[in-house]
Amino acid sequence: VESETQPPGCKDAVPLHKLTPRGRRTRERIIEHAAKIFNQRGFEGGALSELLKATGLGKGGIYRHFSGKEELAEEAFRFAWKRAMARRNAGLEECATGEERLRKMIGNFIHGTLLTVPGGCVMMNTTIDADDTNPHLLALVRLAFQEWQSAIEKTIVAGQQSGEFGGEHDPSVFARRIIGSLEGAMLITRIEGNRAALHEVQEPLNALVSSLVVRKSARREI
Amino acid sequence: VESETQPPGCKDAVPLHKLTPRGRRTRERIIEHAAKIFNQRGFEGGALSELLKATGLGKGGIYRHFSGKEELAEEAFRFAWKRAMARRNAGLEECATGEERLRKMIGNFIHGTLLTVPGGCVMMNTTIDADDTNPHLLALVRLAFQEWQSAIEKTIVAGQQSGEFGGEHDPSVFARRIIGSLEGAMLITRIEGNRAALHEVQEPLNALVSSLVVRKSARREI
Repeated sequence: VESETQPPGCKDAVPLHKLTPRGRRTRERIIEHAAKIFNQRGFEGGALSELLKATGLGKGGIYRHFSGKEELAEEAFRFAWKRAMARRNAGLEECATGEERLRKMIGNFIHGTLLTVPGGCVMMNTTIDADDTNPHLLALVRLAFQEWQSAIEKTIVAGQQSGEFGGEHDPSVFARRIIGSLEGAMLITRIEGNRAALHEVQEPLNALVSSLVVRKSARREI
Repeated sequence: VESETQPPGCKDAVPLHKLTPRGRRTRERIIEHAAKIFNQRGFEGGALSELLKATGLGKGGIYRHFSGKEELAEEAFRFAWKRAMARRNAGLEECATGEERLRKMIGNFIHGTLLTVPGGCVMMNTTIDADDTNPHLLALVRLAFQEWQSAIEKTIVAGQQSGEFGGEHDPSVFARRIIGSLEGAMLITRIEGNRAALHEVQEPLNALVSSLVVRKSARREI
């Protein structure tokens, strides 16, 4: 998706509210394909030719919907992240305790991320792609990271309030340790081309979660 | 550095052994600048124009030395990785114990990586850049990862042989946990734009290292 090859007039993309239902579906289809291409090839490497092939559309058909490559990349990131978060939070409503909930989040990442959007974790990929070059896209990644961190933090805070978890742990630092360990294992998985590193990290992270729990004997002492 | 814009005849790059000392210095200068550009902008985003500006050379002056963008990217990665490893292993010869050595490696990464080559950890960046698109470059990253993992593993094995560390720990899994935690923290540091996540991970990783050590009381029991 090279901005140099955008047709003139692309700044006049049709606004979302003026699209027909069919136009909206086309727009969504473009975003879904763009998400796969950007997550594998990056913002600079994602080629318009590939997107045209994947969608069966012409250049005009793509840029009717987006003001340029930047807007398309942002929409693609939003799409991929929404899908990633849905998978990372799947089944949480069935968890009875905070400990179960955190373990579920960890397991969801380990077993689900590579099935979400091809190319690995969209947060990691977009960070590396954008951190030195695209502050606007990096700002979106930062919001995404904060959303994920906050989901973990809230679970810890709720557990602390209910007495399940000890109050001495910093929920924010704890959330970052979990996310950092998962993302680091994902990186090694991408390097090695197998999931060993991801699977290895599950047991130590579960143990870390268990270390939050106030054990019954300790609770009695209070 | 767009391969499309390479001048014809670039496949006949001057072999290294035929370069004059001045030619070698020029080659090294190109590689050093290319490493900075690729580590910040990626393989696809790194522009020839930027490299020309940084080196003050013309296209012919660059491609006299490299068969194409691929070779330049590989040499740039090797250069950046060598520099990264030198920093990660700095001062190890002064460490008296395996525990000190591992702590030093961890501290070196936390405090030194962002000073090595602009753009963050070259291993992470090149993985994300190459994993879906450039198997040859990814193979180089895999060797680099193995070199780092092996440096940590050897320290653990030596500690196990000397009796400093317990024999129940898998050196390979342990090395991957350390590397994963460091890289994940580096990712969060890139997202947040500050070093908090990197600094936060030092104490838990030091504690993890200490958990390897056979305490004197335990040793006496054996």
